[in-house]
Amino acid sequence: MLHVGVVGCGYWGPNLVRNLAENRLCHKLSLCDLDGAKIERQLLRYPAAKPWTDYEEMIAQSDLDAVMIATPLSTHFDLARKALKRGKHVFVEKPFCASTEQGLELIALAESKQRCLAVGHTFVFSPPVIKIKEILDRGELGKLFYISSTRVNLGLHQKDVSVIWDLAPHDLSMFLHWLGEAPVEVLANGKDFVQRGIPDVAFMFLRFASGAIAHAQFSWLSPSKLRRTTIVGSAKMLVYDDTEHLEQVKIFDKGVNFRDPDTFGEYQLSYRTGDIVSPKLESFEPLQAEVNDFLSAILQKRRPRCDGEDGLRVVRILEAAEKSLMNSGQVEVIGDVKVRV
Amino acid sequence: MLHVGVVGCGYWGPNLVRNLAENRLCHKLSLCDLDGAKIERQLLRYPAAKPWTDYEEMIAQSDLDAVMIATPLSTHFDLARKALKRGKHVFVEKPFCASTEQGLELIALAESKQRCLAVGHTFVFSPPVIKIKEILDRGELGKLFYISSTRVNLGLHQKDVSVIWDLAPHDLSMFLHWLGEAPVEVLANGKDFVQRGIPDVAFMFLRFASGAIAHAQFSWLSPSKLRRTTIVGSAKMLVYDDTEHLEQVKIFDKGVNFRDPDTFGEYQLSYRTGDIVSPKLESFEPLQAEVNDFLSAILQKRRPRCDGEDGLRVVRILEAAEKSLMNSGQVEVIGDVKVRV
Amino acid sequence: MLHVGVVGCGYWGPNLVRNLAENRLCHKLSLCDLDGAKIERQLLRYPAAKPWTDYEEMIAQSDLDAVMIATPLSTHFDLARKALKRGKHVFVEKPFCASTEQGLELIALAESKQRCLAVGHTFVFSPPVIKIKEILDRGELGKLFYISSTRVNLGLHQKDVSVIWDLAPHDLSMFLHWLGEAPVEVLANGKDFVQRGIPDVAFMFLRFASGAIAHAQFSWLSPSKLRRTTIVGSAKMLVYDDTEHLEQVKIFDKGVNFRDPDTFGEYQLSYRTGDIVSPKLESFEPLQAEVNDFLSAILQKRRPRCDGEDGLRVVRILEAAEKSLMNSGQVEVIGDVKVRV
Amino acid sequence: MLHVGVVGCGYWGPNLVRNLAENRLCHKLSLCDLDGAKIERQLLRYPAAKPWTDYEEMIAQSDLDAVMIATPLSTHFDLARKALKRGKHVFVEKPFCASTEQGLELIALAESKQRCLAVGHTFVFSPPVIKIKEILDRGELGKLFYISSTRVNLGLHQKDVSVIWDLAPHDLSMFLHWLGEAPVEVLANGKDFVQRGIPDVAFMFLRFASGAIAHAQFSWLSPSKLRRTTIVGSAKMLVYDDTEHLEQVKIFDKGVNFRDPDTFGEYQLSYRTGDIVSPKLESFEPLQAEVNDFLSAILQKRRPRCDGEDGLRVVRILEAAEKSLMNSGQVEVIGDVKVRV
Repeated sequence: MLHVGVVGCGYWGPNLVRNLAENRLCHKLSLCDLDGAKIERQLLRYPAAKPWTDYEEMIAQSDLDAVMIATPLSTHFDLARKALKRGKHVFVEKPFCASTEQGLELIALAESKQRCLAVGHTFVFSPPVIKIKEILDRGELGKLFYISSTRVNLGLHQKDVSVIWDLAPHDLSMFLHWLGEAPVEVLANGKDFVQRGIPDVAFMFLRFASGAIAHAQFSWLSPSKLRRTTIVGSAKMLVYDDTEHLEQVKIFDKGVNFRDPDTFGEYQLSYRTGDIVSPKLESFEPLQAEVNDFLSAILQKRRPRCDGEDGLRVVRILEAAEKSLMNSGQVEVIGDVKVRV
Repeated sequence: MLHVGVVGCGYWGPNLVRNLAENRLCHKLSLCDLDGAKIERQLLRYPAAKPWTDYEEMIAQSDLDAVMIATPLSTHFDLARKALKRGKHVFVEKPFCASTEQGLELIALAESKQRCLAVGHTFVFSPPVIKIKEILDRGELGKLFYISSTRVNLGLHQKDVSVIWDLAPHDLSMFLHWLGEAPVEVLANGKDFVQRGIPDVAFMFLRFASGAIAHAQFSWLSPSKLRRTTIVGSAKMLVYDDTEHLEQVKIFDKGVNFRDPDTFGEYQLSYRTGDIVSPKLESFEPLQAEVNDFLSAILQKRRPRCDGEDGLRVVRILEAAEKSLMNSGQVEVIGDVKVRV
Repeated sequence: MLHVGVVGCGYWGPNLVRNLAENRLCHKLSLCDLDGAKIERQLLRYPAAKPWTDYEEMIAQSDLDAVMIATPLSTHFDLARKALKRGKHVFVEKPFCASTEQGLELIALAESKQRCLAVGHTFVFSPPVIKIKEILDRGELGKLFYISSTRVNLGLHQKDVSVIWDLAPHDLSMFLHWLGEAPVEVLANGKDFVQRGIPDVAFMFLRFASGAIAHAQFSWLSPSKLRRTTIVGSAKMLVYDDTEHLEQVKIFDKGVNFRDPDTFGEYQLSYRTGDIVSPKLESFEPLQAEVNDFLSAILQKRRPRCDGEDGLRVVRILEAAEKSLMNSGQVEVIGDVKVRV
Repeated sequence: MLHVGVVGCGYWGPNLVRNLAENRLCHKLSLCDLDGAKIERQLLRYPAAKPWTDYEEMIAQSDLDAVMIATPLSTHFDLARKALKRGKHVFVEKPFCASTEQGLELIALAESKQRCLAVGHTFVFSPPVIKIKEILDRGELGKLFYISSTRVNLGLHQKDVSVIWDLAPHDLSMFLHWLGEAPVEVLANGKDFVQRGIPDVAFMFLRFASGAIAHAQFSWLSPSKLRRTTIVGSAKMLVYDDTEHLEQVKIFDKGVNFRDPDTFGEYQLSYRTGDIVSPKLESFEPLQAEVNDFLSAILQKRRPRCDGEDGLRVVRILEAAEKSLMNSGQVEVIGDVKVRV
């Protein structure tokens, strides 16, 4: 049974609080926010929680086991480092941190302290994403050709980070999870329409060593919410639409058959179309599974399903994509980083 | 009343034939194809048409006024040049021709011969595209920020040109028509999955001098047919979905209001959401309007609505996009070309 | 090889003409309409057809094998009877005729003359309806509980018959085809909003001896076109949406499990939800299959797939439903009719 | 500031509890359920609430102002009567009660005790239903012709009442609210497929004195959730789809124009199609508005927006529809009842 502190009780933090309150592995809650009013609102619902406006004081509690960080990106590194230094297990919301350098330091610190370092790639815990991973792992789509993703909506404009740092972590964490490989190159284009210097529309292109490619578009300036990912393989194709209630995942038994040249020296293509199947998905809250995985990992002394290295892989792509975006779409190579020493 | 010859009676040509047969400005039809069986099939429906398997012979008819070319791209230049040299008016299916050089020569030839040179940008004649042009021209969307387009399906793989040359002319002709300007830069990425050397998936990014940007994705390898264009302006946003029967165009009264910093030095953003309106569209066949425009232009001795220069502008972007695609997405500048001497 | 005459070249007849012209079993076409202009329009496309404005003269041709009737309902009986009396094979568009009495007479006449009598229940030849028949026949849905259908649109108001006589034949022919039984009772309600005395909105309820029930709503006064049929069985459920391009048929692996009372004397219900499958459908024009079936039946001296008895079964329900509608929804029993003597 | 007791903490009650806890007009909460475990679950969230397993004891509290009843239908009458007799204000979930007789008694009791008696017709407080009422009241649809509604899903089968008593109150409360009149006749058909004696599929037809008609279908045995209402008027048509996130209400500028007979003695119909508009809807939780209306009505000593008479009007139709359903769809006349003495 764990004592867990949540820092950041604004937009997302309360979801962590609710899931901790309902999780039997957590017996005690500390809540921290610079804004006392935000804590008050949580205390109405969870009066047994301990309120803190000073983070240092909260993590100074000797019986505090773990900290979950749901503050703005710019504070992730500092808050996580402090908690790790005091020997606390740490969960950081996505994106993990603001640079590769920061990520490497946090990972090394967690290693040396032998503490859990988890990153909040919530989609990886969601039923459709898990189902797609199963489908890909059993080879149902054949050789993976490409992924194309759209994640657009009206708002919410962030004031400190671009639309890429805000929205791309979702898709990138899924891509890496599904493919089991990180991209070797990235390009990004886009523009800042509403706030100068903060791109609100972006298009990102990725190349993988396996030959697969991926594309994703992100926007805070779009008339309707779209969250649609198409995965095309040599044998079948798949569409994942996260805005659907029913049939979030559809598998299309479609493809092209390539026939080698025969007598007349011309190859032939034929198109194959079969059934469309929308597989039954489990039904649970991804965040509940994620919080539970973090708490279990601590108690079982194992790595969480999304750890610092998973977070770092995504940060490296974000860094490179942002650099490409600032340089009119120039190709950025994403080199290998030896994470563990 | 005109005598019109159609060359190419395969996939698209018969649509031209049908529209000519039903147009009162055309009193006589000549049909040409290397494959006599394809002509036979047309003669069953239009027994009065004159069949030809030799293009030179067809255009040698002194009473032939115009030629409509619906053959593979690689033959456009040669067939159009021959017809123009004999003083025939010429309509070429999109894409106009295979290079800027070819386009310039055809335009110059048509000028010197004082003949109509039309290019088959059919979408420009379609009710939703015309309605969107009206909406943009009256400034309803405010300052135009960006366009994002998706044109994907399963098939048909072309054997001589990439998916960009096959599908992008549709979107590019619309973009140029709506914006009234050509892009200054283009980037493209993609890959050849099924046929070596012929990209079947591509992503294209355009920058315009006005500050607008545009993106389009093209694929012959996609599980479902999507033809969706989003146009975002500072005042309103618009979605054009060509696969819908009803409500092909929707105008969203949505936007972001930017308020300048007040006392506390921080600007504020607020999101505005109003009615969604799907305007009534005219209902006619775009190809009918296009054929009629070509025939009328000849009789009225005026330029057709989509002429050689419109075709050339699209070809220049295709050329640059293809070059970018072959160079891993490097930026291609699209310089100005003085078309008319 | 057959000589076929089509009577009625207005709205639907030209579709029959086109399919006859393209069918190899038909070598000669006669066309008849009171309105010479309508025939002229057909002759432009099919100049080899023989035009007639006098039906009696057309059927007086000794080499005429068959007549296809696509005229208003009130003329069906008379035109069919005349043709049968002259020994022609007859195809009548739906609805077969205006009363049970008429239907019985035509069937008896065809029997005595040993001629084919086919009725145009085109939907029975359509790929989704055929696929659903297969699914039902192999028992995939379990015991059939109920069917609910919606067939509404704006227009076209008929001037001689109610919306039930106009639209219900489609659904009724499908219901009878799928279930293999005719209903024993029918109720209908509705109203005449636009034209006095001609109901344009109606709701029809059917009871079958097997215990199944069916409901269908019809309207000429509806904002959008809906053609949706839900079939619910004890094991699975199915939706057929005829307005969809893709996924016209979807099978839902859903149901309720009923568990008998245990210790506490209360039965338990549990809901089961599995995959959703949209089976691949064939792709052909139903009318082509229907015309071909009629011509083949003549040549092979067999009954057509939809014969007079099928037509009569539908007419009997229409009669009863109309009577119920005129009597504020009173139950009408549909007795058995011995069709063949 | 009011002390409110909620009885029934099973499926729906907790929603009332949450809205009371967040409403400033309620300063004290009592919770009652026969099942102590259900109360425990609520106390975890609302530890300040007073728990009761004995209803009589709860309403014996002298400082208790009002009771909100969210128990099974069969208990509504008894619980409401007891509370009214003790002088408490009463809110009853829909359907109000099990018979006209019960409803009349409760209304009379509330009158004599001068207490608020509200009924939980939540839809009447929902943004789309309010918007539609505005549209109808300003005559935008012209003369109202008919309403057709579909409310189907898989489950939840009730064990004590038919699908009509379970689902029809939603639609009936909307119909009465929109039209401002009660129907004069009702017919219903349906069947009990899963539980003997408890119809789970039903079709209901209503006639109004104004000439309007309405139809609704209800099912607990349907593959997908549909909640769609079409309203057709002489001038425009409207679709309300409650399962949509966006565009829940769409107004179609469509209709039929009837032209009187001219020279040739035949009237002409023409169809009009204009823009489709999806009006901006407010965004709030209907239940919050409903709870607030009840609390405000008490404090302001006014009638709540949905009072006992509204509840009774719906119960009278349910009674008649159920009777019709049990009698194979026979017409049931719904007479006038003098509610207030």
